[in-house]
Amino acid sequence: MDRVAIVGASMTRFGKREGEWVRDLLAEAGRACLDDAGVTPDEVEHLYVSNMASGEFEGQTGVPNALAHDLAAVPAYTARIDQTSSSGGAGVYAAWQSVASGASDMTLLVGGEKMTHRSTAESTDVIASLTHPVEYKHGVTLPSFAGLTARLYLHTYDAPRESLGKVAVKNHKNGVDNPHAQFRKEVDLDTVLDSPIIADPLRLYDFCPITDGSAALMFCPESVAREYADEYAVIAGIGGATDTHVVHERADPTTMRGVVESSEIAYEMADLGPEDVDVAELHDMFTILEFLQSEDLGFFEKGEGWKAVEEGVTDRDGDLPINTSGGLKSKGHPLGASGVAQAYEIYKQLTGEAGPRQVDANVGLACNVGGFGNCVITTIMEASE
Amino acid sequence: MDRVAIVGASMTRFGKREGEWVRDLLAEAGRACLDDAGVTPDEVEHLYVSNMASGEFEGQTGVPNALAHDLAAVPAYTARIDQTSSSGGAGVYAAWQSVASGASDMTLLVGGEKMTHRSTAESTDVIASLTHPVEYKHGVTLPSFAGLTARLYLHTYDAPRESLGKVAVKNHKNGVDNPHAQFRKEVDLDTVLDSPIIADPLRLYDFCPITDGSAALMFCPESVAREYADEYAVIAGIGGATDTHVVHERADPTTMRGVVESSEIAYEMADLGPEDVDVAELHDMFTILEFLQSEDLGFFEKGEGWKAVEEGVTDRDGDLPINTSGGLKSKGHPLGASGVAQAYEIYKQLTGEAGPRQVDANVGLACNVGGFGNCVITTIMEASE
Repeated sequence: MDRVAIVGASMTRFGKREGEWVRDLLAEAGRACLDDAGVTPDEVEHLYVSNMASGEFEGQTGVPNALAHDLAAVPAYTARIDQTSSSGGAGVYAAWQSVASGASDMTLLVGGEKMTHRSTAESTDVIASLTHPVEYKHGVTLPSFAGLTARLYLHTYDAPRESLGKVAVKNHKNGVDNPHAQFRKEVDLDTVLDSPIIADPLRLYDFCPITDGSAALMFCPESVAREYADEYAVIAGIGGATDTHVVHERADPTTMRGVVESSEIAYEMADLGPEDVDVAELHDMFTILEFLQSEDLGFFEKGEGWKAVEEGVTDRDGDLPINTSGGLKSKGHPLGASGVAQAYEIYKQLTGEAGPRQVDANVGLACNVGGFGNCVITTIMEASE
Repeated sequence: MDRVAIVGASMTRFGKREGEWVRDLLAEAGRACLDDAGVTPDEVEHLYVSNMASGEFEGQTGVPNALAHDLAAVPAYTARIDQTSSSGGAGVYAAWQSVASGASDMTLLVGGEKMTHRSTAESTDVIASLTHPVEYKHGVTLPSFAGLTARLYLHTYDAPRESLGKVAVKNHKNGVDNPHAQFRKEVDLDTVLDSPIIADPLRLYDFCPITDGSAALMFCPESVAREYADEYAVIAGIGGATDTHVVHERADPTTMRGVVESSEIAYEMADLGPEDVDVAELHDMFTILEFLQSEDLGFFEKGEGWKAVEEGVTDRDGDLPINTSGGLKSKGHPLGASGVAQAYEIYKQLTGEAGPRQVDANVGLACNVGGFGNCVITTIMEASE
C-alpha cells in the first residue's frame, strides 16, 4: 500500500499576535506551507483546519472556507476538525485518512487558534467547557486535574517535586533555539520552584501559556512525494483513542488510557515499538503530563519517567530527546495549532532541517492530548530513505 | 476495492426539544443507531460528531468525548467535524474516509444541533458568523443572499414567483408522512404567497425553521455489511468542493460551483450520472436552493428546475422525487444533523424502510450545502444487491 507522506511544513511565530485574527494566522501558515512544499493552490484537493473554538474566541465561524479563499484554493474541499486541545493531532489523522482513502492526492492541514485577546479567565472558561458537566459545574478545571494528578504521582512513585520543575527547565532550554517559540529564555529550577502556586504542587512555570499561532503540513501519497521534496517524512503509524470523559472515574489517574490505546494502534500499524523512537514531542500542557505520556507510550517503566528527566535521558543530547521544540511549555499552546506544530517539529528533525535543535533521528513520535487525556492521537513518523 | 456500506441509521424527532441539550440528542440518536445496526458500543472504532456550534449555542464543547461516554464507546477515537450548515455531509465524508482508509472497521457518525433555546436573532447571528467579514459586517445574512439570488433567478429564467412557493408546498406535503419532521402539516400555495416578506421575493414559508435534532449512521466495509443488515446501502460516490467565500464575487450567483464540482467528483467515483439517480435529498434551506441544486447536479437544464417542480416531476410520485423526507423546509434544519438526516432518508429509501414515503429507488443522492454554497458535499448511495 502507498503510504502517506508529508512533503512540506510551516509554522508562524507563536505568542501574542495583536491585531491579527485566526484567519490571518491560518493564511500565514498556509501560504508558507504551500511555498515550502512547492505546491500551487490549485493542486490542493482537501484543506483541513484544526481549530477548537474560533466562534467562542472571536465570534467567527466558517474559517476553513475563509482560508480556501485567502489561499486561492477554491474549489478545494474543506472542513474544520475539532478535538479540543488535540485538534491538531485529529487534523493530522483526518489529513492522513483523506490521502490513505484515495479521496485526495494533495491535502493541506492548517491548525490555528487566536486566544490572547481574551483574558486568561475567559480562555480558561472556554477550555473548561470541554469537561464533563458533573466536574466543571463544581469548578474543576484542567489545571486543577493536573495538580491533583501531580500530587498523586509524586506520592505513589516517591518522586521529588524538583523532577517536575526539571521538565520546565529542559523545555525552556530547548525553546531558546526555536525561532517560533513564545518564550525563548531559559529558566532555572529555583525560578520554577519559587513561582506562584496555581494548583498545588504545581506552580506557574509548570503550565503552558495562552498563545496565538498556526502551523501547517502538506500530505500526499508517498509514490509522488519525491516530486515535491528530496527529504520527506512518512506517517508510519497513527491512532486515536478516548479515556473516560469523567476524569474522576479513572481507576488510576496516573495512567492515561488514551495514550496507551492510541500508541498501541500506531505502533502496530508502523510495526515499530517504543524502543525504535529516536525523538518525541509530548503534550506538556502541564509538566506532569510529560511524565505520564513518556511512561504510557512505553518509553519508560510506570513511575520512572521522572528519573529519565533527572538523569538527562530526555535532554536534547540524551538517548531519547523529548520536546526539542521547547514543547507546549515554552513554544506555547494555541489549541488547534499544537498537534500540527508537534508534527512540524518531528518533520524538521526527520528531514534534517531542525537547525540548532537537530538531533540524530530516523523515527519520531508525536502525542497530542485533548482535555485531560479525554482523547489522544499518537503519530509515528519515519524519515524517507 | 471494498466499498463502504451503511448498515444502520436513526434520527430523533426534529423540532423544539425543550429541556434537552445537544449531548442528550446525540446520545438518543447514537443509541438508536447502535440498536438499528445491531452493533455493540465496544465494536465502534471511530465516532464522529457533526456539529457546527455547540460552544456558541450552549457554552459546551468536547461533545464527541461526552458522546463516547454516554454510549459507553470509550476508547473509540472521536472528533468533531464542522462545515457550518453542511457539517452533516462533511461527517459522512469523514466517516467514509475513516473506513475507506482502513483506519476504522466500524464508524458511528452522529450529527446534531440544539438551537431553539436561543432567539431567532441570536441563532441567525451565529449562522451569519460563517460568512466573509466584508459581507456580514455590512449586515448581509444568508436569507438576504437567498432573496437576492431568487430575484435574479426569476428574472433571468422568466420563472413565476409561484414556482418557488410550490417547492414549499411539495416539501410540506412530504413532511406529513415523516414522523420525525418538525412540521407535519400541508400548506397551500396561497398561504406561502401571503406569508410575511423576509427577503423579497422570499417570504416566511420559503425558509426552513430553527430546529433541534440529531441523526446517526453506522459505516463499515461492504465485505462485512451482511453480518449487520440484510438490506444495506453503499456509498458509491462522494465529493466535496468550495465556492468563493465572498458570495458577491461569483460570476453567476444562480450557479453553485460547489454543487457542480462536488457532484462531478461523486458521479465519476460512482461511475453514474444524474440520469441514474432515482431519489434525491437537496438542501432546501431556502426554496430557491432546490432549483439551483436540481440544475447544478445535472437533473435539469439550467433555468428549468422550476418547470420540473411546476410539472410535478419532483413530487413523490414523479420521475425524480426530491425531498421525500420533507426536506429542511418541513423536517427542520438542526445544522449539524441535516446532512446526516439527508443520508438517513436516502438509506431508508434504498433499504425499503421509508414506510408511507417509500419510492422505487436503487440509486439516491444527497446534496448538503454549507453557507450559501461556500462548501458542498454530494453523496451518491446505491442499494445492496
